[in-house]
Amino acid sequence: MTMLETLMKKRNNEELSAIEIETMIQNFTDGKIPDYQISAFLMATYFTGMTIPELTTLTMAMMHSGDVLDLSEIPGIKVDKHSTGGVGDKVSLPLAPMLAALNIKVPMISGRGLGHTGGTLDKLEAIPGYQVEISEDAFKKQINQVGTAIIGATGNIAPADKKMYALRDVTATVDSIPLIAASIMSKKLATGNNALVLDVKTGAGAFMKKQDQAEALAQIMVKIGKEAGMQMQAVISDMNQPLGSKVGNTLEIEETLDTLKGQGPKDLLEVTLALAAPMVVMAKKTDSEMVAREMLMGTITDGSALAKFGEMIAAQGGDIGVLDDYQLMPHAKYEIEVPALTSGYLNRLDADAVGIASMRLGGGRTKKDDLLDYGVGITLHKKLGDAVKAGESLMTIAAEQADISEIIDYLQAHLAIGVEVAAPTLIHKIIK
Amino acid sequence: MTMLETLMKKRNNEELSAIEIETMIQNFTDGKIPDYQISAFLMATYFTGMTIPELTTLTMAMMHSGDVLDLSEIPGIKVDKHSTGGVGDKVSLPLAPMLAALNIKVPMISGRGLGHTGGTLDKLEAIPGYQVEISEDAFKKQINQVGTAIIGATGNIAPADKKMYALRDVTATVDSIPLIAASIMSKKLATGNNALVLDVKTGAGAFMKKQDQAEALAQIMVKIGKEAGMQMQAVISDMNQPLGSKVGNTLEIEETLDTLKGQGPKDLLEVTLALAAPMVVMAKKTDSEMVAREMLMGTITDGSALAKFGEMIAAQGGDIGVLDDYQLMPHAKYEIEVPALTSGYLNRLDADAVGIASMRLGGGRTKKDDLLDYGVGITLHKKLGDAVKAGESLMTIAAEQADISEIIDYLQAHLAIGVEVAAPTLIHKIIK
Repeated sequence: MTMLETLMKKRNNEELSAIEIETMIQNFTDGKIPDYQISAFLMATYFTGMTIPELTTLTMAMMHSGDVLDLSEIPGIKVDKHSTGGVGDKVSLPLAPMLAALNIKVPMISGRGLGHTGGTLDKLEAIPGYQVEISEDAFKKQINQVGTAIIGATGNIAPADKKMYALRDVTATVDSIPLIAASIMSKKLATGNNALVLDVKTGAGAFMKKQDQAEALAQIMVKIGKEAGMQMQAVISDMNQPLGSKVGNTLEIEETLDTLKGQGPKDLLEVTLALAAPMVVMAKKTDSEMVAREMLMGTITDGSALAKFGEMIAAQGGDIGVLDDYQLMPHAKYEIEVPALTSGYLNRLDADAVGIASMRLGGGRTKKDDLLDYGVGITLHKKLGDAVKAGESLMTIAAEQADISEIIDYLQAHLAIGVEVAAPTLIHKIIK
Repeated sequence: MTMLETLMKKRNNEELSAIEIETMIQNFTDGKIPDYQISAFLMATYFTGMTIPELTTLTMAMMHSGDVLDLSEIPGIKVDKHSTGGVGDKVSLPLAPMLAALNIKVPMISGRGLGHTGGTLDKLEAIPGYQVEISEDAFKKQINQVGTAIIGATGNIAPADKKMYALRDVTATVDSIPLIAASIMSKKLATGNNALVLDVKTGAGAFMKKQDQAEALAQIMVKIGKEAGMQMQAVISDMNQPLGSKVGNTLEIEETLDTLKGQGPKDLLEVTLALAAPMVVMAKKTDSEMVAREMLMGTITDGSALAKFGEMIAAQGGDIGVLDDYQLMPHAKYEIEVPALTSGYLNRLDADAVGIASMRLGGGRTKKDDLLDYGVGITLHKKLGDAVKAGESLMTIAAEQADISEIIDYLQAHLAIGVEVAAPTLIHKIIK
């Protein structure tokens, strides 16, 4: 079976065999298939889609193209969480220590931000000394001792996905639901965990703008994961406005700490609980998500989650002084208010615009090797549905320059004050 | 406008602007766009198709990527004919001298064969001394003096098409009707002619197996040509069985000469007239295709077409002795009969199988640089609908080896004798 025959079948919407897919991925990883044939495959897949057996094989083949973590020496069920990315989405940060405080193992391999959504690793690096690159052995040891660790990828995770993503990026084949699903799941399966809860964002600030697309993606990923033997669940959550009130690296660590102290914003807590509760059930700590929510809230009220976050920071070389003194983290030079230009109700606050503004301030990357200003960002004082008065501050911008009028104009153009609206539903759907 | 944006639009089935298409073709020709983006474009086009304005722009851009012949110094209307390729399809060979004998200018740039269909240039090279590679000046001079010339491409014709075709060949995007149309028409427009009649073959031995596909291709090419200012017409003709009785290089020159002497097979003459008659009308020699047919038949009965063929051969350095003595051309060592295995009516005779058999004998190429045995080939004694008796010869194979049992078995497997059937309709449709 040559690549040309594989291409012909895919183009004709015939189902590929496991051997065909495995051969293609292996040869692509080894550089034996030219990019122009893979890009034709990607475009054909964009149009014809993939069946669940095809997708499962593709995902497993991409996973096996590189290193696969073996966490079997860590006893118990290892649970993991993945978000498709949103603005102000810092859920992993409170979630991991809350679960670990319930004696659940949460090994997390996270990423850096690119574009308008921030990366969990970048946020953690706002904590002085925090190391995200640690060895596989140290990672396993920390999971056993602390219960959780949030690190960057160790070794060579899914190189086929890396090569394929680079090609998708330049061939207009990024937004193919099966290709997105295979890309995410190949990396998630390579982490060696037993259970995974997915947070698939939908709305203006999400990769999946429409809810039906988000649901289709969630459903496919849940199926692939189950086929691969993982416990799976997905939550479709709203990303029309940013999650929580703070966007930016230091700012999001502050909000995480506030949340673990019981003083965080309600929406962030709600999404955290919606994702963490099924993880408690998957880890067999209870049969009931209602009970799980109470257990999770207990880790906040008794301070055990905050303490666990401190343990994790300490284990990864970070300064636990930040738990009490936020000033130990980098802060920007200027704080600039963005006033309401009229009175009424905030009825538009584009999540992606806030993300892009934060990126332009220096908090995010437009290119892979951009350096970050950890202290910059945006603190929202109003969210969708809130009443505002003309002149009142809608948000505070933390910036390194005094003149950010262009960014303020950009933000003003992407928010609107008008008639009263209800705050958007936070959790749209649960997919099991 | 970057190539990524162009790709995104094409993928989303939005119409590309002229600038977008022209930029793409220019940059592709200059090596500024990587193959993997063009292959993604080709696959997207396979699925979304192209509008007539897009296709016309693409065709013109590919034409202008290289040399365009300027035939303006040749007075009068220059008419051309193109076939999508069939087995035993030697129509250009009698057609060009018949038209030239009517004082019509027929400058023809032809190709070589690859795969199961033969090439007009290869057939002409069976004539000792015949030169297909002549200079542009000599070509023009010959058109002025003789009225016709059949030569290989001079200069650098449509290099963008050459590059694109090479990529289509390895990315399963050959059989896209708009891409086929642009490829053919870019080269035909580059010849500088004023009128073009297309012979689009359909049936088992044709590239377009189904008549509706053949019609779609013909219609698109006629539209592109008219947009570019050419007089256009297309004929959908049958290619279920070979055209005429002889397949092979020397053999097809023999059949051409027989036809010009009024002794050729009926089907070959009929297709030749169906294509040549509208060309006579386009050249303004008459308003009526019926009259045109009579004029064309007159060039056979009065010997002027045969004399014109001799003039062309002489002008291109060939030995005009072949007109009377076919033995001056290469002939194969062995003649082997293929007997009917049973009695009845010939009701299957796969054109592509006959073409492949001829190729395997050495008469065609499987690779670009294969050398040809001009003398080999197949002479059919029976065609679809003919009564046959067991043991009677169905065809004679001219071969360089004595043992061709494998080829005979292959041919027997691709023909059938059974109940009486009608000979297939030769001309399915005329598209203006």
